[in-house]
Amino acid sequence: MSNSRIPGKNFLFVPGPTNLPDRVVRAMAVPSEDHRSPIFPDLVKPLFPALKKVFKTETGAAFIFPASGTGGWEAAITNTLSPGDKVIAQRFGQFSHLWIDLCQRIGLDVIKQEREWGTGNDPELIEETLKADKNHEIKAVLATHNETATGVTSDIAAVRKAIDAAKHPALLFVDGVSSVGSLPFEMDAWGVDVIVSGSQKGFMLPAGLALLGVSEKALKAGETAQMRRAYFEFKDMLNANKQGYFPYTPALPLLYGLKESLSILFEEGLDQVYKRHHHLAEGVRAAVAAWGLKPCAKEPKWNSDTVTAIVVPEGFDAAKVIEIAYKRYNLALGAGLSEVAGKVFRIGHLGDLNELMVLGAVAGAEMAMLDVGIPVTAGSGVAAAQAVYRANPLLTV
Amino acid sequence: MSNSRIPGKNFLFVPGPTNLPDRVVRAMAVPSEDHRSPIFPDLVKPLFPALKKVFKTETGAAFIFPASGTGGWEAAITNTLSPGDKVIAQRFGQFSHLWIDLCQRIGLDVIKQEREWGTGNDPELIEETLKADKNHEIKAVLATHNETATGVTSDIAAVRKAIDAAKHPALLFVDGVSSVGSLPFEMDAWGVDVIVSGSQKGFMLPAGLALLGVSEKALKAGETAQMRRAYFEFKDMLNANKQGYFPYTPALPLLYGLKESLSILFEEGLDQVYKRHHHLAEGVRAAVAAWGLKPCAKEPKWNSDTVTAIVVPEGFDAAKVIEIAYKRYNLALGAGLSEVAGKVFRIGHLGDLNELMVLGAVAGAEMAMLDVGIPVTAGSGVAAAQAVYRANPLLTV
Amino acid sequence: MSNSRIPGKNFLFVPGPTNLPDRVVRAMAVPSEDHRSPIFPDLVKPLFPALKKVFKTETGAAFIFPASGTGGWEAAITNTLSPGDKVIAQRFGQFSHLWIDLCQRIGLDVIKQEREWGTGNDPELIEETLKADKNHEIKAVLATHNETATGVTSDIAAVRKAIDAAKHPALLFVDGVSSVGSLPFEMDAWGVDVIVSGSQKGFMLPAGLALLGVSEKALKAGETAQMRRAYFEFKDMLNANKQGYFPYTPALPLLYGLKESLSILFEEGLDQVYKRHHHLAEGVRAAVAAWGLKPCAKEPKWNSDTVTAIVVPEGFDAAKVIEIAYKRYNLALGAGLSEVAGKVFRIGHLGDLNELMVLGAVAGAEMAMLDVGIPVTAGSGVAAAQAVYRANPLLTV
Amino acid sequence: MSNSRIPGKNFLFVPGPTNLPDRVVRAMAVPSEDHRSPIFPDLVKPLFPALKKVFKTETGAAFIFPASGTGGWEAAITNTLSPGDKVIAQRFGQFSHLWIDLCQRIGLDVIKQEREWGTGNDPELIEETLKADKNHEIKAVLATHNETATGVTSDIAAVRKAIDAAKHPALLFVDGVSSVGSLPFEMDAWGVDVIVSGSQKGFMLPAGLALLGVSEKALKAGETAQMRRAYFEFKDMLNANKQGYFPYTPALPLLYGLKESLSILFEEGLDQVYKRHHHLAEGVRAAVAAWGLKPCAKEPKWNSDTVTAIVVPEGFDAAKVIEIAYKRYNLALGAGLSEVAGKVFRIGHLGDLNELMVLGAVAGAEMAMLDVGIPVTAGSGVAAAQAVYRANPLLTV
Repeated sequence: MSNSRIPGKNFLFVPGPTNLPDRVVRAMAVPSEDHRSPIFPDLVKPLFPALKKVFKTETGAAFIFPASGTGGWEAAITNTLSPGDKVIAQRFGQFSHLWIDLCQRIGLDVIKQEREWGTGNDPELIEETLKADKNHEIKAVLATHNETATGVTSDIAAVRKAIDAAKHPALLFVDGVSSVGSLPFEMDAWGVDVIVSGSQKGFMLPAGLALLGVSEKALKAGETAQMRRAYFEFKDMLNANKQGYFPYTPALPLLYGLKESLSILFEEGLDQVYKRHHHLAEGVRAAVAAWGLKPCAKEPKWNSDTVTAIVVPEGFDAAKVIEIAYKRYNLALGAGLSEVAGKVFRIGHLGDLNELMVLGAVAGAEMAMLDVGIPVTAGSGVAAAQAVYRANPLLTV
Repeated sequence: MSNSRIPGKNFLFVPGPTNLPDRVVRAMAVPSEDHRSPIFPDLVKPLFPALKKVFKTETGAAFIFPASGTGGWEAAITNTLSPGDKVIAQRFGQFSHLWIDLCQRIGLDVIKQEREWGTGNDPELIEETLKADKNHEIKAVLATHNETATGVTSDIAAVRKAIDAAKHPALLFVDGVSSVGSLPFEMDAWGVDVIVSGSQKGFMLPAGLALLGVSEKALKAGETAQMRRAYFEFKDMLNANKQGYFPYTPALPLLYGLKESLSILFEEGLDQVYKRHHHLAEGVRAAVAAWGLKPCAKEPKWNSDTVTAIVVPEGFDAAKVIEIAYKRYNLALGAGLSEVAGKVFRIGHLGDLNELMVLGAVAGAEMAMLDVGIPVTAGSGVAAAQAVYRANPLLTV
Repeated sequence: MSNSRIPGKNFLFVPGPTNLPDRVVRAMAVPSEDHRSPIFPDLVKPLFPALKKVFKTETGAAFIFPASGTGGWEAAITNTLSPGDKVIAQRFGQFSHLWIDLCQRIGLDVIKQEREWGTGNDPELIEETLKADKNHEIKAVLATHNETATGVTSDIAAVRKAIDAAKHPALLFVDGVSSVGSLPFEMDAWGVDVIVSGSQKGFMLPAGLALLGVSEKALKAGETAQMRRAYFEFKDMLNANKQGYFPYTPALPLLYGLKESLSILFEEGLDQVYKRHHHLAEGVRAAVAAWGLKPCAKEPKWNSDTVTAIVVPEGFDAAKVIEIAYKRYNLALGAGLSEVAGKVFRIGHLGDLNELMVLGAVAGAEMAMLDVGIPVTAGSGVAAAQAVYRANPLLTV
Repeated sequence: MSNSRIPGKNFLFVPGPTNLPDRVVRAMAVPSEDHRSPIFPDLVKPLFPALKKVFKTETGAAFIFPASGTGGWEAAITNTLSPGDKVIAQRFGQFSHLWIDLCQRIGLDVIKQEREWGTGNDPELIEETLKADKNHEIKAVLATHNETATGVTSDIAAVRKAIDAAKHPALLFVDGVSSVGSLPFEMDAWGVDVIVSGSQKGFMLPAGLALLGVSEKALKAGETAQMRRAYFEFKDMLNANKQGYFPYTPALPLLYGLKESLSILFEEGLDQVYKRHHHLAEGVRAAVAAWGLKPCAKEPKWNSDTVTAIVVPEGFDAAKVIEIAYKRYNLALGAGLSEVAGKVFRIGHLGDLNELMVLGAVAGAEMAMLDVGIPVTAGSGVAAAQAVYRANPLLTV
């Protein structure tokens, strides 16, 4: 009935969708129910403060839309901006690229700033651009927190500082699809106006929920926003959510799943979740170094703790590594996209993972690389990662 | 962990979300997987021809969006029309009302035609309006196949005939959220250009998928449609679906659920599915008559086979019946909405139901009515429905 | 994949296995794990005090064997008695019959006392028999608390009083397979030495666990018991359980299910569980009376609150009612067994049930009886049960 | 709700219970049903021929008892032998030891032949013993096919040859709990009279089913067998099974699980299943050699393809390796039992496993050994196993 191949488990190391904890699978296996019943709010109401705890916001509002992260981008923009509004967006990977593309389709005037792939947001350039915008025609700065295509994390606090240094009223919109729930994220402290996330990464759920945090300032901006919207209307959501309901039938199992995955995050503790992602990522990076290879991220400061894009040596096709990993060893790696297609393969290391799962994936990547002729030493990456993991194991009991 | 109350099962008789077959619950309990893997198309590709079989279209295209039915409405419009386009829509219940509201928000110029609640589409009025539209400014006719709020089914073939009689090129858009997969529906034969449905009714799934059928004519109209869209872009879907993929991460468990629910529909046989819904509905209508009450549907020809709205006698509050049914007997009935609030309660009789489930609900409705003082005879509705069901039982082995 | 028939739910009204709460289904969907791990006792240890709470014993020991209730009988006997030991057992239904049969196969000398089917234990006869046993050759009295075949509950406290009145040291063994967790049961207060139950009735689990409560006196008797045993050895269990383990690999999902079903029982409250069973049973009995039929139980004092055996009128075949109920209406009724085969059909009303579920079954039984020509009035049983249920509904919120 | 630890999956490498395929978890999540219904045999009847296909018997009968493997041993003996019967059993590990212990408790006269732990059955000694038994007082030879405690597989065909060479009528009983469904097994070809297996190893199910194959000769021997039995009575099972039923309530989810796991075994193909176990085992053995360690199996011919017991160097405590593997790295290894306690740890490599799962476990074992100070080279075992696995990967598409 399922698509899964026998024997054994698939090693899912794309940077999302991530592995589902078995607690989440169970939590979602619920019967259908009346989403207008008197007890439905018992499920719904606690979800919003819990989400705000993950976004680290006290003053903002949390939203749950039945949509993918792409829908979340659309919701963010259509509820806060007007057709033809200017926004700044820096492009340094496939996902920052796609966000720009969506903005243009929806009708924004995007000031697209090209950055080398393997780097991230350049706050200085943003500051400079905003300073030059004397009439405040720029309404928002769009920043991709974690560029999933290249394995690059940007400093969002620095982007806010740049906006403030320019004394510019632009809103700060952040794509946190592959960061929230995995990497430290501070909506209020960093002055983020809209954070867009999705259920299928750090939240350890299937795709199907766009999860947003929206600041009071952004909600206020929405009062005059002229973009057309209906499905993604914030106001309808706020009104219904306040009572513990939704304006249309919600994706019920995902709400139960969200309740459980939030419990899991809080049981582990958000700080420990962040530490774990760093720990697992350090092992992968040690393996890459032991292989004599380089990550796509140009400098250590860009390293992402949720995904590592690994550059294969000249003359080799990264796509072939991915194909062999999947077909021979049941290991799903992420592909290189667009400008880095064929040049990198990606190991996602986010969500419900522990050391041995990562070591299995590292071992599998080694085998696939060897199979295509890339001269790495068998076991070398595993040994390097083991050293990292033994120094500071996740579990102690 | 779940919201369910002990002891026993909830009797879910709202007209959606409907009961999940346990086969569907199991089918959705899948591990996460790479939605870009070489084997993913094995799951995806067969879904589209299967959906087309349910829509009864050979020439149209099927779409699966991670959204609710409301998102389906938005997708239908934004992919085929332009801002300011004129459309005709008749309003005779809360869902035809909401569709009009959405069209207006999105930027259409809706010619709203009021009809008495308890009746449905008036093809003559449509024909007349279209005939008067010499310049063909009207781009589409919007018709609600099954008005869930009042339990009224309209004759869609007659609407098409009206359009054709007017020799008008307007597209025909149909809301089939609470009809497709339960009531006979013939996209090609009836000349429907866009049919919008959702996963949580006749498809016996949780909410979360908007399911659409789109005619070649509507796809062609889309080439010049100027509405802004991104998340709901048909072209991106078509291009990705052709290869067995989606433009963004799909709601995986729902796809597995859809595969299973389509199998269930075909195992039972669509014709038998329609007959069953009629059979179950006849029992409910017999019960209503035995109670000495009337359905909201003004004439038998409007009777819906998926939901019956029952008018409580003057002086009684239908909301109280619903409250007691839920709180005392764990029976979820549908509320009266807007103009019929407090006047009707609704029994949904669609999806994965059989006779005894319906009899349990009928018995529960009787008890709740008696509890609020409505003078019905205990057991009378049950006895009337039993007579219908015994005459022609669903199962024979 | 499953055996279930479409459409709709099966109405499962055999007196076991009973309906699984969806919470239990979810709880059992666990991955495999090491049953010797350091954390395994966190699952196992709390099960025993919880079981003792259900058995109402403070001084006895609780046992969980991977077996059916039949295995529980065997465990009880082989751990406490010796080949050729005399025991008293009264026979008044198929399950008291089978227990006697098992005792004889295992090597006991059973003093079988015939009682009319439809009655239960006769304490006076027991007292008399024991008084006549001057040499105390009788080692145990076997009493079936709830005879599932006829719907008869016996007074176990009275049996103990009879033993005590005879000043006889015989042990008191009770078959509580279809009573424990549904009917009031007081192991300590009633002086029960071994209570045998199973997972698939009041415990709302699949079959597969034999659950026993054993008094200190019975454990002591075991020290000299000469019956051969290995799989069912109490001592091995006690030693392993004390540490939170089992002597062999346990049926893991059932343990997780047991943990959950015990939680459900305690959340509802044992006293409320007993009241609910009485309440549901009263409705069924009112229906039987309204049909003009009689229960198999000869007098009201024998009425079981977990199952009602209904005698069909002369000239009708109860097996035909059951067949039609199943094949036409997806209603599973219990068959008449042995002496009452063809004469009765049984409605089990135990486990995870509420009023509307029972009313659906009553409606279905009516239809099946009408279909075979039994002259009952359609809706009459439902109306009678509704009156009982409306007077005192289970839920209040 | 479950006992599982966050984050990530547990690496379950005890030699049973084994990992559940997610298809099996889903298959078991079924509602309860009437085990006497007319459609129940549709589930039950096909299980027996399928089991016989796994046992490789055409003339024998298959049995499914709700019990653990220990119960299977008891069923085998009590149905075929009489109190005081002589049997030969060789003891070379904890499980052959426990079987002997059970036989003695049940009342057999066991001729116990000690063999060095790390070796297996000695057919010559058996032949010799049987030849000396002129009066054919020995009724059966008990042989443990795969000694789980030491990782030793014996040659069962050779045992049969020994019996035949001695021209002795003794029955051949085989414990195949950790071999059937994983290692080649040929009931008919090898002349096995009773094969005892369990659900929780090669059958990839939870514990709870004892699965037996019984030859015609053994069934015939049962006609005069005087052992007391009731729960485990073959005749009751045969009679009920013939009609597609069971003599008592079966463990329903496990039957659905068995149906699914048999499908999985046949989809992969039994020969491929055996090859895969050999392939995975070869990788583990290569790792052990690379670590400079030795398996408990004294010679390569004893190597088990389902479990490897690894001897830690003098001065180290294997229990400490196991404890650290579990507590730090969420890796469950098997303990050394009885005579090899503290001297070996065991890696189970049977059931639903693939290469990367095993590599993760090998990496984890390396880390745990390093943590306790055993001087192995990090990554060395992984590299050695990788070489084996790359040479002949399981999957090719």
